[in-house]
Amino acid sequence: MLNKTMQHLGEERSVIRELFEYGNGRKKIVGEENVFDFSIGNPSVPTPDFVQKEIRRLIDTVPPEVLHGYTSAPGAQEVRKAVSDHIETKFGVPMSANLVYMTCGAAASIAIAVEALCEEGDEFVTVAPFYPEYRIYVEGSGAKLVVSQSDEKFHLDIEALDKAVGKHTKAVIINSPNNPTGAVLSAEELKALSALLEKKSLEKGETIFLIADEPYRELTYGAEVPFPMNFYHDTILCYSFSKSLSLAGERIGYIAVSPFACHADDLFSAVCGAGRRLGFVCAPALFQRVCAASLGKSCDVEKYRANRDLLYGALTSLGYECVPPEGAFYLFVKALEENAVAFSERAKKYELLLVPSDSFGVGGYVRISYCVPRAVIERSFPAFKKLYEEYRPRSL
Amino acid sequence: MLNKTMQHLGEERSVIRELFEYGNGRKKIVGEENVFDFSIGNPSVPTPDFVQKEIRRLIDTVPPEVLHGYTSAPGAQEVRKAVSDHIETKFGVPMSANLVYMTCGAAASIAIAVEALCEEGDEFVTVAPFYPEYRIYVEGSGAKLVVSQSDEKFHLDIEALDKAVGKHTKAVIINSPNNPTGAVLSAEELKALSALLEKKSLEKGETIFLIADEPYRELTYGAEVPFPMNFYHDTILCYSFSKSLSLAGERIGYIAVSPFACHADDLFSAVCGAGRRLGFVCAPALFQRVCAASLGKSCDVEKYRANRDLLYGALTSLGYECVPPEGAFYLFVKALEENAVAFSERAKKYELLLVPSDSFGVGGYVRISYCVPRAVIERSFPAFKKLYEEYRPRSL
Repeated sequence: MLNKTMQHLGEERSVIRELFEYGNGRKKIVGEENVFDFSIGNPSVPTPDFVQKEIRRLIDTVPPEVLHGYTSAPGAQEVRKAVSDHIETKFGVPMSANLVYMTCGAAASIAIAVEALCEEGDEFVTVAPFYPEYRIYVEGSGAKLVVSQSDEKFHLDIEALDKAVGKHTKAVIINSPNNPTGAVLSAEELKALSALLEKKSLEKGETIFLIADEPYRELTYGAEVPFPMNFYHDTILCYSFSKSLSLAGERIGYIAVSPFACHADDLFSAVCGAGRRLGFVCAPALFQRVCAASLGKSCDVEKYRANRDLLYGALTSLGYECVPPEGAFYLFVKALEENAVAFSERAKKYELLLVPSDSFGVGGYVRISYCVPRAVIERSFPAFKKLYEEYRPRSL
Repeated sequence: MLNKTMQHLGEERSVIRELFEYGNGRKKIVGEENVFDFSIGNPSVPTPDFVQKEIRRLIDTVPPEVLHGYTSAPGAQEVRKAVSDHIETKFGVPMSANLVYMTCGAAASIAIAVEALCEEGDEFVTVAPFYPEYRIYVEGSGAKLVVSQSDEKFHLDIEALDKAVGKHTKAVIINSPNNPTGAVLSAEELKALSALLEKKSLEKGETIFLIADEPYRELTYGAEVPFPMNFYHDTILCYSFSKSLSLAGERIGYIAVSPFACHADDLFSAVCGAGRRLGFVCAPALFQRVCAASLGKSCDVEKYRANRDLLYGALTSLGYECVPPEGAFYLFVKALEENAVAFSERAKKYELLLVPSDSFGVGGYVRISYCVPRAVIERSFPAFKKLYEEYRPRSL
């Protein structure tokens, strides 16, 4: 009677959301300060002042029916031009405003990019650990998600990708800086990936696209994030201002189709058509303009760095194993038993809310979101210590 | 290589957008004041002051990372409660916040409702003239759109609907006040439709749903808009604040699942799942809160009424035929020749931009959006007169 797939998708609370709700319940019982909720990736660093100022300036100076009125479907022309200029200046790509499509955030960007490309029998390849919603968008479009594992430092395993990418591959989806590991792909990795995709496209006799999901581009701790369009021609860049400007709830981002892509104009048309089909009309108008004025700026990343250093230092000195994240705001920590779900359950005993890694396509880890107030991290150390000692008693 | 359906959807400019762009070109050649652009339904009445004040109040009082952070996927709990309370108080329906899902506007609401319901082999029935994007959402979900014609006053033709609704019908989509005719469905019509759907559901052995698309609910000129949930149990209400608060570009609205619906909770889950699949995460956070504080209020409808009266009076006194609109801000005028596209082309000679009715599922009319400055209407009269006289010369 209803679409059962949709009903199931709506009923199935994500593991992350489940933990978050559990935490809210525990806070009422044991007190807010005694629960260490590392479940959700909601930015904790305040939205920068220049964003709030720009909102006020726009409200004070632009007639409201213009400011809040429809923009054209791909976005206000001046906003698209600003994004295009930014990409051209910063990354040296001869971008065009006509290849920029403003979206309702990264989720919309990915869903639209997949829908624009997907034909019957297609496969999309991604690299685990990966953002779980990729599966929803790919399967929703009628395609199959093929998961290739990364190497043990969470970087590209080109040999594994060589096996995963084949005749049915329409695109490869990468995410750097990565959620949940914080890994940043290097220029060498992008070169190797590009060479692989060129070879595979030739074998297939058709272009294989690269979808680069980059909501964490601005959130790095020194690592340079190479720009994928400078490595591979047929790239669709999916960007969001959610994390860089702490605007996650405002749903604002963009798709940029590489000007080097084969039939870039047709590809852009398909992006516009996919946006239309999925029910998008235009990206939120006020925040289109706010973000156009904030390109290249970001919130105070140093606060996340301080959190990372504090947590990474404390956990590793306790004995936990973890690759230091180069970007984003997650620590991907080895669980102290093989079963990450069981480990996450055990951690609850100490009011530690850690996301088991299974939904990211890999077992045996937990994701710790450190976009939380510093005090939460500081107060959590005794709990992490007790959890560790439960698995590895000192007396042994 | 790309999805050709999406590419085509993106390439095919809507007739409305085409006219609008043509008008922008003409304005540069003959001067802005000499072009009479009635193509687009972008609200012209300013966003109310209380909306701008509420934006400022929220920015001044709520921590920005909270104000602009993620809400839960169906919306902030207090916002859903406010919408639910509003529906309960105003329409006497025992609504629940757990059946309210905040959306990125009416387009998202319809796309999500259709995706939530659609199974293989389904048909969705709508009544012409209808909003053209219904076809995109229905066909995008893999279903067939069945079009039933309205009567000559653009109200429900129950006999025609009796033939259109059958064993494959999953839902009927209605739109009142109507775009493009301004017709408002009466309580008697909703009663008759409800009786029909109950009969047809019994025959089918499964629920047939009613999707009520109501972005113009607040924009009426005295006509009462009966509340569909009070007539038919299995109703999904799709609302938007775009027109009532002149916020079309901010993409904010909601879906309310009737508490009387069969398995209402499952239906709500399917709505959540469909939103997730289509790439929606949460509705824009700032405007969720702005709209929660503006429920039951609207922009200055009297300005639209004055435009309607002025234009309707002038056109009918010139000899044009038109049913007076009871709501929304469109006049649906009989073309002076059978071919509406040819008539619209002829009107361009006088710099009149009128949307031919074919994309609304009916021939022989043009849609005139009177959400324009009053001066545009006043200046357009000589042009309408010349156009009329070209078809019906006075000397004859």
